[in-house]
Amino acid sequence: MFSFRFRPLLAGMLLATAAASPALAAPALTVTEAAAPAAKAAPIKRIDPTFWWVGMKNPKLQLLVHGPGIRTATAALRAYPGVRLDSVQQLASPNYLLLHLTIAPEARPGRLQLDFKGAKKFSYNYELRQRTTPGDDTKVQGLTQQDFIYFLMPDRFANGDPKNDFIKDMRAPKVARDSMYSRHGGDLAGIEQRFDYFKDLGVTALWLTPVVENDMPRASYHGYALTDYYNTDRRYGTTEQYRQFVERAHQNGLKVVHDVVLNHMGSKNYLFLDQPAPDWFNQWPGFTRSNYNASALNDPYGSVLDRKLYNQGWFDTTMPDVNQANPLVSTYLIQNFLWWVEYTGLDAYRIDTFPYSDPKFLMDWGRAMQEEFPRLALFGEAWVGSTAQQAFFARNIFQPVDGFKANLPSVLDFQSSFALHDALKSGNMLKLYESLQGDWLYEDASRNVTFLDNHDVSRFYSVIGEDFARYKMGLAWLLTTRGIPQLYYGTEVLMKNFSNPDGLVRADFPGGFAGDSLNYFKSRPGQPGEAFDYVRKLAQYRKSHAFLHSGKLMQFIPQDGVYVYFRYAPEGTVMVVLNGSKESRTLDGARFAERTGGFTSGLEVTTGAVLPNLKSFTVPAATAWVVELR
Amino acid sequence: MFSFRFRPLLAGMLLATAAASPALAAPALTVTEAAAPAAKAAPIKRIDPTFWWVGMKNPKLQLLVHGPGIRTATAALRAYPGVRLDSVQQLASPNYLLLHLTIAPEARPGRLQLDFKGAKKFSYNYELRQRTTPGDDTKVQGLTQQDFIYFLMPDRFANGDPKNDFIKDMRAPKVARDSMYSRHGGDLAGIEQRFDYFKDLGVTALWLTPVVENDMPRASYHGYALTDYYNTDRRYGTTEQYRQFVERAHQNGLKVVHDVVLNHMGSKNYLFLDQPAPDWFNQWPGFTRSNYNASALNDPYGSVLDRKLYNQGWFDTTMPDVNQANPLVSTYLIQNFLWWVEYTGLDAYRIDTFPYSDPKFLMDWGRAMQEEFPRLALFGEAWVGSTAQQAFFARNIFQPVDGFKANLPSVLDFQSSFALHDALKSGNMLKLYESLQGDWLYEDASRNVTFLDNHDVSRFYSVIGEDFARYKMGLAWLLTTRGIPQLYYGTEVLMKNFSNPDGLVRADFPGGFAGDSLNYFKSRPGQPGEAFDYVRKLAQYRKSHAFLHSGKLMQFIPQDGVYVYFRYAPEGTVMVVLNGSKESRTLDGARFAERTGGFTSGLEVTTGAVLPNLKSFTVPAATAWVVELR
Repeated sequence: MFSFRFRPLLAGMLLATAAASPALAAPALTVTEAAAPAAKAAPIKRIDPTFWWVGMKNPKLQLLVHGPGIRTATAALRAYPGVRLDSVQQLASPNYLLLHLTIAPEARPGRLQLDFKGAKKFSYNYELRQRTTPGDDTKVQGLTQQDFIYFLMPDRFANGDPKNDFIKDMRAPKVARDSMYSRHGGDLAGIEQRFDYFKDLGVTALWLTPVVENDMPRASYHGYALTDYYNTDRRYGTTEQYRQFVERAHQNGLKVVHDVVLNHMGSKNYLFLDQPAPDWFNQWPGFTRSNYNASALNDPYGSVLDRKLYNQGWFDTTMPDVNQANPLVSTYLIQNFLWWVEYTGLDAYRIDTFPYSDPKFLMDWGRAMQEEFPRLALFGEAWVGSTAQQAFFARNIFQPVDGFKANLPSVLDFQSSFALHDALKSGNMLKLYESLQGDWLYEDASRNVTFLDNHDVSRFYSVIGEDFARYKMGLAWLLTTRGIPQLYYGTEVLMKNFSNPDGLVRADFPGGFAGDSLNYFKSRPGQPGEAFDYVRKLAQYRKSHAFLHSGKLMQFIPQDGVYVYFRYAPEGTVMVVLNGSKESRTLDGARFAERTGGFTSGLEVTTGAVLPNLKSFTVPAATAWVVELR
Repeated sequence: MFSFRFRPLLAGMLLATAAASPALAAPALTVTEAAAPAAKAAPIKRIDPTFWWVGMKNPKLQLLVHGPGIRTATAALRAYPGVRLDSVQQLASPNYLLLHLTIAPEARPGRLQLDFKGAKKFSYNYELRQRTTPGDDTKVQGLTQQDFIYFLMPDRFANGDPKNDFIKDMRAPKVARDSMYSRHGGDLAGIEQRFDYFKDLGVTALWLTPVVENDMPRASYHGYALTDYYNTDRRYGTTEQYRQFVERAHQNGLKVVHDVVLNHMGSKNYLFLDQPAPDWFNQWPGFTRSNYNASALNDPYGSVLDRKLYNQGWFDTTMPDVNQANPLVSTYLIQNFLWWVEYTGLDAYRIDTFPYSDPKFLMDWGRAMQEEFPRLALFGEAWVGSTAQQAFFARNIFQPVDGFKANLPSVLDFQSSFALHDALKSGNMLKLYESLQGDWLYEDASRNVTFLDNHDVSRFYSVIGEDFARYKMGLAWLLTTRGIPQLYYGTEVLMKNFSNPDGLVRADFPGGFAGDSLNYFKSRPGQPGEAFDYVRKLAQYRKSHAFLHSGKLMQFIPQDGVYVYFRYAPEGTVMVVLNGSKESRTLDGARFAERTGGFTSGLEVTTGAVLPNLKSFTVPAATAWVVELR
């Protein structure tokens, strides 16, 4: 099902709808035409945000009105208690008008009547709803180390509703599951049907690649080329279905991480096809690609050009770079991302290509999110080369650099992921230890999201040469170290492949699509099943033992390829031993007395084996132990 | 020549000397024995500091009196205007007494008479000199980017005085030049005789491995196992000769960097052989080695044990770890290092194994040095694995961590050195660029000391596979990038070898020793001569073109293995092009317009070749260009 409201946007004509019922998520698009009851050229195509709320902390609201020739219209607000139209602003384009409103705390929900007068007169009923997130603990739950995030691509996970696979009025051709860059048909319904799978595995949060509309002619299955800030991609489900998805996920004990892109949009976005003003985009004489190197941002010796290329160069030919240094654009984006939280009750934002955006905007955006939604979790993708550079984009212990001081609570922890790969490949665990040691640079690195792999890198199992013993070491680390662990879909059943070309690591989950020969949701014979059981065992243990996920971390400098660390709290202690070497190692337990004092033995959580003696023990080569001390 | 004053210390008996003449550097050790004019058991072996000054900013002076059984003596100061004996402190050992004095600003130089009364009565004349460093610009000149440091090992560079090669009352056997770990006979006189060599090369500062006494039975030629805080090693020259060495170096336009060790001492140090108190050392039940990993220091998850092992573990069996957390020890060390500066007028301290010392002590020590000698340069050895960790030990942009906030102006820049090696070996210049980009973490990284190699690592020419083209790239980088460049002796004539065993990289400089078949001071046939000429050309050019050494740096993100950066000032601009790839590269000069604007051509400094066109130019493979823009 998809709502009528898309048609005007796509077909360029306006349909007068009945007043939207509260249950329907479609924007309240009610137009009373004063001059001609059936005019062909509709005065208003849309207003963004599509609706808003009373009770926001920030009383300001900026409405972007889009309609052919509307620039020259006057606009007035019919008297509405607590709401004031402060100003009307024209933009370079003839087809936009900006309204600046103030909504006082005492304003009540209802419909504002906006009266426009240009070639003709017309009115627009703009809906103000009542906020529901404050005080509702089921909404905007945030993330903590208690969570275990499952990251999936909705197009590639499971197809629950074949009817939405292909939408006629959208640009992409029909599904083609044999093509890496085509749509495969996965959707929200498919994910929802597998809630039990996640719960069985021990997952507590779902991160989906962006579910917003990507109405691009090709290769938009990943979701990062958004074409409508206010709608989901109907091939996944309607905006209202997404809201329900979040609600049902919450009912099932699953949080939802919403993937957002601040830096760029898809070139078929209506705002790019019909630009409000040239300065809404970072314009170049010809197509100019980003240099993709965040070093340019805080290089004390950097050139203006390299910094400009980084921040303002385009991510891709099909992804125009948004100019967030324009305060109107900044406000548009901030409002949009407040909108999704208040509307759906989502729990966290994962921010794509975080450092590529304008630095000041990033600070403003982060502040706005946290002011309106103190519980909302935020973590950014800052794919950079060092811990310091990564910490630069999260709350950290640095003085501001060129006026920039990150306020993002956390980032995806690329550094520990790189280090884990190196450690498991080389057997030298020191780099892994040091990647955690680097946490002194953060305000609180326990908020960082740890991972073994994702949709942009080679799959973990392939990286480590399909070595099952080292696979278990990686999973043991992921589920016991500090931070919020994230698993990329299929890693629990040994899905493999390399990131070049990237489509290879974005294969369909076996069993998610009609006709699949394997169905890993139901049956996992062989090693994939062993892998799944290993992850489940650890994730469930983690879930039920607070000291493991929320206890303090103490780590010891690795010796002879063996890395030992502890998670501990008054309620209990877990000792993790990772022997990366190719030989068994006998450890002198006296070294760990700070944490083993008071205990005499241990239980290895994944095997149930007893470690009878903490004073001296021998760990086999390439082995992970997760030992609850007794 | 060496002074009599060593004999009492070594032979355990006291010689009454005549009042030391001002020209003689020996401490003013004048004892008037009240009871027995020729007592066999001398009451006082030494007092540290051996003398002191009026006019220090810190009016406090702590005197460590060492003499058999002196603990039980009383001590009094005969009236001396402006000087007060605040207290007398006993230590655990019977053989020490601590006197705490205050020297008021109005005190005049002279001799304090200290009266002791124990088994017998005796007096000691302690000398207070007039400070000479303030206002004397020839002394304590500091270091700036104008400098070019030559780092050498005095034992291995040149033997100027064969008479001091072997000192009978010292522990080591005679020189054995065929043995890597024996003394070879080099000395201060040998260095001084080569002042013209340094000046010819363009060197402006000499850094010698420690010249303090290392009276160890073996392998102390490196100087890092000091046995007397207040004396030079007589095999290099006397303390007074060292003072003269500094003076003559200054007269020759050469600054002197004094290498100091705060963390440990040699096990034959009198303070260890006859310990003032057990808590002057970090004591362990048995020999306990440091874990050599500074990560333990600021690991938010580190164990107490690892941190203790790092800070308090011993560097070597022969190097007791000094407990600087003991305020008496801290004061002893601070005074000693103030003493060397005021006494010799040296220009800079290079601090060995900097992070191994007690963090609070490091702050106190740095503050004390800078308060008394604002011009004194200080740079530390912090051999760690990341830029952030390195910057942690210099003035930086971090909030304090566990109360530690470094006040050291700069560090040896291991990170750019590692990165350069990687870049030249791989041809990928990105890591080199990024090592400089990391400077955002420092208060001012231009104070850092850059280097290609040193006495602890494999020699640069060997590291890069004896590739002369890449050798020139390394030297070009060293002499044009930000920072204070340091050359390890012999690198200018292609000395080579690997650091395992370390003696190999500490070979004698050819021509420094009698009978050497090659004498590179006089004649450098073949490629060593080409290398020398290349370094000289760049160093002399650097010396005479302020914009190169002190101009701003702008760097561009490397592309296709080519790294381009500029040093620039209103007076001129140098463009450096390092093509690390195996192919020639044609560059579009438009990218560098920010720095090439106003110029049309360039002159390559080392070859004199003209670069006729800045709009487009082709750089051969594995080539460094240093181009003055015209």
